[in-house]
Amino acid sequence: MVYTELDPPTRLLLGPGPSNVPPRVLRAMATPVIGHLDPAFLQLMSEVQSLLRYVFRTRNWLTLPISGTGSAGMQAALVNFLEPGDPVLICVNGYFGERMCEMAARLGATVHRLERPWGEVFTPEEVDKALQRHPAKVVAMVHAETSTGALQPLEGMAQVVHKHGALLLVDCVTSLGGVPVLVDDWEVDIAYSGTQKALSCPPGLAPITVGPRAEEVLKQREHKVQSWYLDLTLVQQYWGMERTYHHTAPVSMIYALREALRIVHEEGLERRWARHQRNAELLWEGLQELGLELCVPEPYRLPTLTTVKVPEGVNEAYVRRRLLEDYNIEIAGGLGAWKGKIWRIGLMGFSSRRENVVLLLTALRRILQNPS
Amino acid sequence: MVYTELDPPTRLLLGPGPSNVPPRVLRAMATPVIGHLDPAFLQLMSEVQSLLRYVFRTRNWLTLPISGTGSAGMQAALVNFLEPGDPVLICVNGYFGERMCEMAARLGATVHRLERPWGEVFTPEEVDKALQRHPAKVVAMVHAETSTGALQPLEGMAQVVHKHGALLLVDCVTSLGGVPVLVDDWEVDIAYSGTQKALSCPPGLAPITVGPRAEEVLKQREHKVQSWYLDLTLVQQYWGMERTYHHTAPVSMIYALREALRIVHEEGLERRWARHQRNAELLWEGLQELGLELCVPEPYRLPTLTTVKVPEGVNEAYVRRRLLEDYNIEIAGGLGAWKGKIWRIGLMGFSSRRENVVLLLTALRRILQNPS
Repeated sequence: MVYTELDPPTRLLLGPGPSNVPPRVLRAMATPVIGHLDPAFLQLMSEVQSLLRYVFRTRNWLTLPISGTGSAGMQAALVNFLEPGDPVLICVNGYFGERMCEMAARLGATVHRLERPWGEVFTPEEVDKALQRHPAKVVAMVHAETSTGALQPLEGMAQVVHKHGALLLVDCVTSLGGVPVLVDDWEVDIAYSGTQKALSCPPGLAPITVGPRAEEVLKQREHKVQSWYLDLTLVQQYWGMERTYHHTAPVSMIYALREALRIVHEEGLERRWARHQRNAELLWEGLQELGLELCVPEPYRLPTLTTVKVPEGVNEAYVRRRLLEDYNIEIAGGLGAWKGKIWRIGLMGFSSRRENVVLLLTALRRILQNPS
Repeated sequence: MVYTELDPPTRLLLGPGPSNVPPRVLRAMATPVIGHLDPAFLQLMSEVQSLLRYVFRTRNWLTLPISGTGSAGMQAALVNFLEPGDPVLICVNGYFGERMCEMAARLGATVHRLERPWGEVFTPEEVDKALQRHPAKVVAMVHAETSTGALQPLEGMAQVVHKHGALLLVDCVTSLGGVPVLVDDWEVDIAYSGTQKALSCPPGLAPITVGPRAEEVLKQREHKVQSWYLDLTLVQQYWGMERTYHHTAPVSMIYALREALRIVHEEGLERRWARHQRNAELLWEGLQELGLELCVPEPYRLPTLTTVKVPEGVNEAYVRRRLLEDYNIEIAGGLGAWKGKIWRIGLMGFSSRRENVVLLLTALRRILQNPS
């Protein structure tokens, strides 16, 4: 077998992630590697933590990137705060809520589901009632459902959850850096994300932040965390003051994350959220002008990821293939219950640009004129 | 806080990993990211798998990189093949054997330890006797103990393990790509490694290979794997024929691994092993000329990582600090029982070069002339 020079096609990434990575971040990854215990690296780690606190809008001391992708973040968030037999209430309105149930069940938690049709969101009142029926140690929900494009409002949610003595755990994979994620204001106890969405860093790390209530729960655990690799107490001994070796940090990915966060910091979160909103609105308008129907009504429509119904008689996979092959544009199809029925269009981080919206709409118009 | 341009010092990495990364691999990481389900990426994945089979010397179909560092590889190897209550025999002669015990206990396995003093190795006869006392589903051992510098011979080991109906699981983190790892010839059932050692790729991925006996055990599991993220059956559905989305692959790291493996393939494994042996011998000779004592006798001495006793009256941390600050050379101290007592010097992958050995020996000589 001959292994040729690496030369992948140049794609415009408008799917549910990864998004396009800014040249500065790519260049940061090409920086020569240093040791994971080098004093210079320890300094970079502190900066990454400080920048993560900025994007999460939190003062949580326990804020760091897990050495795995967003799903490793989900796994870490569940396995550290749930012990076998612990009751958890999981809000399910899409594919990633389902994934949480699957992960929580595997680690031995008792899973109670609060369900809503795909594309809808939950109210604090519903969560309150559900907790009256099923007390839980943790209430888990998805802030930005990547499978449906729905944005879960979080105002008032923690108050209800805390009233019942539970922790609020939130999946921010497709929201962090693109729409407001206000961990301290909203009193979210545990939040995690991925790097490859609105932060526009390559996939491979999962930022996580843990508030004081959740830290206390971690300290009070009866059994050791099943996963040694994701044990936040051990991971924190490396990222915290002790700097005790746990596992070898993914140095180049940390370089990339630092640069991606530096770019977020330079732009400023408010301007970044506004840019995501502006470009998303341009996209929504353009899609509707093409006669396409959006899946989620505006108050809950996610600016980072838009879901569109595939019109009757249109071959959804064919349209995506034409976009990819003729225009080098990646968008995605549906997951699970919505497979074959929708398209998912991401405008995240570096990919959220006016010129990308215009190009996509033009390409879509041309393809839909001859859709088979 | 001001976040300055990323500009870490340029280090010569002669510790236990990461090793220095070749410019070609660094450049590969700067390649624009494409989607994890892009047909062009799926092709790259197949090439990475084929190259991994080459370095593992195996035809195992289930051969892929886990999306985490070497410790995630260890976790994956244990959690997929051990269910709660399953007996496992773990050979402990260093820090990483201990880590295996800790991980296996956390996932609920019944751990039997076969122990040897740090720096020594096991014979098939000992393992045979231990299995007579404690039948086990899996026998786990470390091929190259990064904490001691001992190389565990594996000839004849699988025969004993298989006679007792168990699987042989081997940690090849510090051996793969630097010393012979002959998975098929030795009939190893499960082997995993890390990317940042003798493969000279940045840390962040854990190659793993699973043979037919072990695949059968995976199929016969009673319970689902506790860790959804590391469930090899699900991971394999993405890396195998189905290409079913599991988690977003760390695209840039896969680029890096492909390039690092391409370099191994171009050099050829036999030539690479010989280079590691040659440069290690040069180092051993030079260290002994400096009056230093090596920890492991030659037949079991690991070419990729050399352990050296700190002479009486020498401040080991001071010597390392001088090497780092005055010469930009990183070596490591001891772990666990050997903390403060030894140095660990790695000559792995791109770092295994004659000029590096000569420079290190010269710097060490100068520092040891005035060691405080």
